[in-house]
Amino acid sequence: MATAPTVDAVVRAAGPHVAALMGRIEERLAAVIAGHGELLAAHAGSTIAAGGKRLRPLLVLVAAGPDATGDGIVRAAVAVELVHSATLVHDDVLDAAALRRGRPTVVASAGRDIATATGDLLFSRAFAELADNGRIDEIQVLSDAGSALAAGELLQRADAWDGSVPVQRYLERCELKTARLFEAACMLGALEGADADGRVEALGAFGRRVGLAFQLLDDVLDVSGPAERTGKHRGADLLDGTVTLPLILARERDPELAALDPRSVRTPAEAEAVCARVEATGALEEAKRRALAIVAEAKAELPELPGPQREALELVADGVVERYA
Amino acid sequence: MATAPTVDAVVRAAGPHVAALMGRIEERLAAVIAGHGELLAAHAGSTIAAGGKRLRPLLVLVAAGPDATGDGIVRAAVAVELVHSATLVHDDVLDAAALRRGRPTVVASAGRDIATATGDLLFSRAFAELADNGRIDEIQVLSDAGSALAAGELLQRADAWDGSVPVQRYLERCELKTARLFEAACMLGALEGADADGRVEALGAFGRRVGLAFQLLDDVLDVSGPAERTGKHRGADLLDGTVTLPLILARERDPELAALDPRSVRTPAEAEAVCARVEATGALEEAKRRALAIVAEAKAELPELPGPQREALELVADGVVERYA
Repeated sequence: MATAPTVDAVVRAAGPHVAALMGRIEERLAAVIAGHGELLAAHAGSTIAAGGKRLRPLLVLVAAGPDATGDGIVRAAVAVELVHSATLVHDDVLDAAALRRGRPTVVASAGRDIATATGDLLFSRAFAELADNGRIDEIQVLSDAGSALAAGELLQRADAWDGSVPVQRYLERCELKTARLFEAACMLGALEGADADGRVEALGAFGRRVGLAFQLLDDVLDVSGPAERTGKHRGADLLDGTVTLPLILARERDPELAALDPRSVRTPAEAEAVCARVEATGALEEAKRRALAIVAEAKAELPELPGPQREALELVADGVVERYA
Repeated sequence: MATAPTVDAVVRAAGPHVAALMGRIEERLAAVIAGHGELLAAHAGSTIAAGGKRLRPLLVLVAAGPDATGDGIVRAAVAVELVHSATLVHDDVLDAAALRRGRPTVVASAGRDIATATGDLLFSRAFAELADNGRIDEIQVLSDAGSALAAGELLQRADAWDGSVPVQRYLERCELKTARLFEAACMLGALEGADADGRVEALGAFGRRVGLAFQLLDDVLDVSGPAERTGKHRGADLLDGTVTLPLILARERDPELAALDPRSVRTPAEAEAVCARVEATGALEEAKRRALAIVAEAKAELPELPGPQREALELVADGVVERYA
């Protein structure tokens, strides 16, 4: 999950202002966490610090282009990352996850109640942060994305343990759970960009496709492993009742998988065996192929843009693909 | 918890437009719930429909005065109630509550994961609803209140099972958990009001005091019972580890209560016994007296206002007190 190489490549393409802005985003995230009491700092600090790829803030920056270097773009990127962090904290509550990126989750170290309130606080601070930009259109983008995230989570729970989920429904869930916040990141960047006219929707569509591909590849990684790459054992989604594209595709190819009741998979060893069987059908390659096609479409449908900005956007899209390589 | 009498009295004082607006608020709440998928309707519908007092929307209306009758005031009231509903759904997750107002909670009927996502969705929709007013100052008021709610929840968890919590810390928690959203209701109403200049802060302070008194009396009710009034057995807060004003005051009067470790209270019967002992110290009267003094202060500090609006605000403040009578 190569953050730094992607950021470095983007900096080479788009200019050193991206590196400076990423630094300011980190500082501001730390300040938001530190500025709302010891409890938030104690509980959310590790989730924010663990950090991960900062892919969404990076999307905000590259969608905005080189002229957006003020506090507005930093606030937009911070707001998106805070919403993302809030969903991570809440997702861990839902999954009762013990570790995220190798560190104890909020729910594991402090309990469900603290984790629920911590996520709520991060979510509120995201809107407070973005409100300081004074732009109601930005608030609308973020609140719609926030609604989509929650609706996606509800859909995932509704479909839990259902082996017969169709591809279309799976894709709808990925759109809600993941792609819409990538879309929002690009839209917010475009709105803060100097010459956003007519590009907000197009850049939003780019982000949405990149986000969809990101989720597909994430779901492939859960089946392909290895655990030291993902920080989880293979098949964690399956044990959680979440039926993803690899299994959906594999069921069309392997009657025994088609007959499998997801509820019967109870142990990591059983999940591992199902993963191996899914892999044997070639479903992982097919899912990966679909994700790559979506990334290619995202790049092909980019609007007319200055060369360095287009290159930076393409590099971020490629960075999503490289996670799998 | 006399909603209807309060609303009726306010309508008599402030005019029939309040009744019409309360009706429109109910319709809009129902439409928001219905408009975001079956899952939200199924899970949040009962929480919203159970409704309760609609005290916060009423505060929005009476703080706005008679000239605010457009969609803006309805959206502000709906947004506040959605945030309140989101916190109810999440609080029930934290408390693992089975019933709220005599109906099964979302967490009891659908599980923690659905309840967490449902609360998140209600919260996002609140901001989406308010954003349609196009006023960034209103978004700032709501996001600050949302942050306060979550911070209050964190504080409550941090103080759980701590019998030695001082009064000041308890009051701080009540401010965050409850009073700040009442304050936001009044500030949003004032912002939507026709002639809000200089009254936003003053009306906010009124709401904050009313909210603080509301929480104090709610905590008195938890100890005084009876269960058929509150829908819970006496001492539910204590069993949940939440040390409130009656116990804090009673500990100053009764050495045996001062020596009590809240963790030792494990059964409803034990909680009932502690409640009786708290009651015997006179702490309930003292807590109630403090709440009434705060309500009186709220009324005394109201800014200059037209007679009917002032009367309506006073009636809502009195309605909070009457819950206890």
